[in-house]
Amino acid sequence: MSSTHHIILLAHGSSDKRWCETFEKLAEPTLNSIENATIAYMELAEPSMETIVAQARASGASQFTVVPLFLAAGRHLRKDVPAMIKEIEQEHNVSMRLADPIGYNPQLGLAIRDVVQEELAKTAN
Amino acid sequence: MSSTHHIILLAHGSSDKRWCETFEKLAEPTLNSIENATIAYMELAEPSMETIVAQARASGASQFTVVPLFLAAGRHLRKDVPAMIKEIEQEHNVSMRLADPIGYNPQLGLAIRDVVQEELAKTAN
Repeated sequence: MSSTHHIILLAHGSSDKRWCETFEKLAEPTLNSIENATIAYMELAEPSMETIVAQARASGASQFTVVPLFLAAGRHLRKDVPAMIKEIEQEHNVSMRLADPIGYNPQLGLAIRDVVQEELAKTAN
Repeated sequence: MSSTHHIILLAHGSSDKRWCETFEKLAEPTLNSIENATIAYMELAEPSMETIVAQARASGASQFTVVPLFLAAGRHLRKDVPAMIKEIEQEHNVSMRLADPIGYNPQLGLAIRDVVQEELAKTAN
C-alpha cells in the first residue's frame, strides 16, 4: 500500500443527524485501525467525497479506494456514484477505485447471523 | 426460545432482482443456522412481512422478532415499519418485536473493518 493511498467509507447521507451518527459509529473500528481512512457522504450530509478528496490531495494522496457502506447496489451505486467519481477524478487529477458494497462480502452475512443469535438470546431470557 | 418463535429478517425490497438476491445471500448464514427464520421485504418485493406472518401463524407461530437488515434507522424504521407491525399484530393476533437495525450492533462495525482490510490487501498486490 502506498502512503498516498486513501480509503473513503462512503455512506448515503441523511439530513437526520442520528442517521449519520450511526454510520460514524459503524466506521469507528475501521478509522481506528486503518490509516488514511475517512467517512464521506454521497448526499445530504458533509463531508462529501469531493471535500475529502480535495483535502487528501492537498496532503499528497492521489489514489483512493471508495468502499460503499451500502448492503446492496441500487441505482446510486450503479450510476450516480460512478458518475460522481469520474467527475472528481478529472477535477482533482486523482485515481479512484469503487469497491463492491460491503454487503457483497461474506463477512457481512456472518455478522448478521451473530446479531440474530444475540436477538434470539434476548428472547430466551 | 419457544418453538413458536419466528425470526423475520426485514429488508427494504426493490424491483431490481439483483438487489433482492444480495439480501438473500446476506441472509443465508442466518437461515442455515437458525430455525424458523425467514427473509421478508418491506415493499417492492415478495414475500412481505404479512405473507410470512400469515404462513407462520398457520403453522402455530405467534411470536415474532423482526430484525431489520438496515444499517441505520430512517423514516422507514422509525415510522412505516412500526405502523405495519401494529396492523399485522391486530390482523393476525400475533406479537411482534422490532429489534434495532443490524447496524446498531458493534459486530457490524468490526465486519466493515475486516472488509476494508481485504480491500487494502487488494491495493497492495
